[in-house]
Amino acid sequence: MDTLSGQERMGQPDSPARRARLAIRNGQSSGTTHGKANGYAVANLVVIESALAADFLLYCQRNSRACPVLEVTAPGVYEPVLLAPGADLRTDLSLYAIYVDGRREPDRNDVVDLWTPDLVAFLLGSGISFDASLERAGVPTHTNRWVVETTIPTVPAGLFRGPLIATMRWLTPAQAITAVQVSSRFPQFHGAPIHIGDPGEIGANVAAPLLGPPIHGDVPKGLVPVFWACGVTPQRAALEAKVGLLIAHAPGHGFITDLEAERPVDQWAPDEMP
Amino acid sequence: MDTLSGQERMGQPDSPARRARLAIRNGQSSGTTHGKANGYAVANLVVIESALAADFLLYCQRNSRACPVLEVTAPGVYEPVLLAPGADLRTDLSLYAIYVDGRREPDRNDVVDLWTPDLVAFLLGSGISFDASLERAGVPTHTNRWVVETTIPTVPAGLFRGPLIATMRWLTPAQAITAVQVSSRFPQFHGAPIHIGDPGEIGANVAAPLLGPPIHGDVPKGLVPVFWACGVTPQRAALEAKVGLLIAHAPGHGFITDLEAERPVDQWAPDEMP
Repeated sequence: MDTLSGQERMGQPDSPARRARLAIRNGQSSGTTHGKANGYAVANLVVIESALAADFLLYCQRNSRACPVLEVTAPGVYEPVLLAPGADLRTDLSLYAIYVDGRREPDRNDVVDLWTPDLVAFLLGSGISFDASLERAGVPTHTNRWVVETTIPTVPAGLFRGPLIATMRWLTPAQAITAVQVSSRFPQFHGAPIHIGDPGEIGANVAAPLLGPPIHGDVPKGLVPVFWACGVTPQRAALEAKVGLLIAHAPGHGFITDLEAERPVDQWAPDEMP
Repeated sequence: MDTLSGQERMGQPDSPARRARLAIRNGQSSGTTHGKANGYAVANLVVIESALAADFLLYCQRNSRACPVLEVTAPGVYEPVLLAPGADLRTDLSLYAIYVDGRREPDRNDVVDLWTPDLVAFLLGSGISFDASLERAGVPTHTNRWVVETTIPTVPAGLFRGPLIATMRWLTPAQAITAVQVSSRFPQFHGAPIHIGDPGEIGANVAAPLLGPPIHGDVPKGLVPVFWACGVTPQRAALEAKVGLLIAHAPGHGFITDLEAERPVDQWAPDEMP
């Protein structure tokens, strides 16, 4: 334990994370989160009405590989006081996906006018957070990424249920081993892979991926598919529950937190939080 | 992914975990959990009324080092269908602590007559689960254990708040390093230590520990105190909230699950759960 305050630990006023969020808020920065604040944890956003929040939290607990909860705000509160004091979840993501009664509406750059005192925001760890760690260990991440639906069911809670969605990469065997080692250190960002090898064993629909080019035929010789639980899973479950209003980050446009991605999750001490 | 069913993976009818629970249920086994089912994960129990369950789950999420949630039952359900199908949380612990309006009542061997359709059970990972792993790595666990209150505050949720309670051991520097390595593999059972060294830095009250002999004077030469977040923390928070009825495991008398303790938490796949 040292004497640094929460504020000093979690992100100085001039930290790259804070600068990146302010640039997004002020309309000076757009596009995906990639490269905007390397070294900081990125969170996926799910905002739903408070009446459903308890069941959704339970759903996340029951499916923690896919839905690692980093913070839950109190109803109506748009400041993530633990992950990024001073930030505004209504404006500090560069693109929001909006669903009304399960139908996708046009994306928005902010959701100030949609916010009500009844909304609860969930920030969920994103695998993007350990991309830089994979890269440093020699595992390529910037190409070669798919998002696919599997036939693995999640454990239901209340109205929330649905299939596990997976992130897939094709790696060499040596890269796959390194990827297991590196990602195991990050349970808060989905952790270790859920599967290595034949996509068919988990019912992964690689012919019609949710993200990435369709794959027909065999995996290239010398490469092995590696699958992680994916943060699209909770968004999909919220959609299947046909919630009246769902606000989420648009794919690739996550929330940049003040947390250093490399810090082990169980060293994010309560006493270091404001 | 192999073809073992959930039942086969999670504990056969004749597994040591199931036999240990049945012996407890039938009154053929009493005393602490220690040694009853080595290799299986042990869970702490907190049972509260359903109206408080959502806030308590949020409290656990916000303090996940102290309160790693393994399973939450639906209201009234006393079978932990994920951790131990067929088990009965009213009878399968050897000793229960009962609190009514914050006052401790006499311990009981079962809570069948206290159970109502409004109760929700939380099973929280216990550090006892990795004791065997520490022992195998040369770190002694069976003596030399204290439970102490610290001045580190937990992050509140609803009525739930209170100090972080810690488990303390005195280890050699080499054992302390090994203990960090081994316990880091078990975030579901409190994970890595929260502190090494001077108890005063975290306000640990070693002169009046909650468990273990009072300590006065210096740490023996060549030993270093090592502290982990402790599962007493959520029980203490529930008491501070002055819940009408709190049922918990009596200290040392945890619930033996069907889960193999050594399996990484993020490999407890939903598809392997019944």
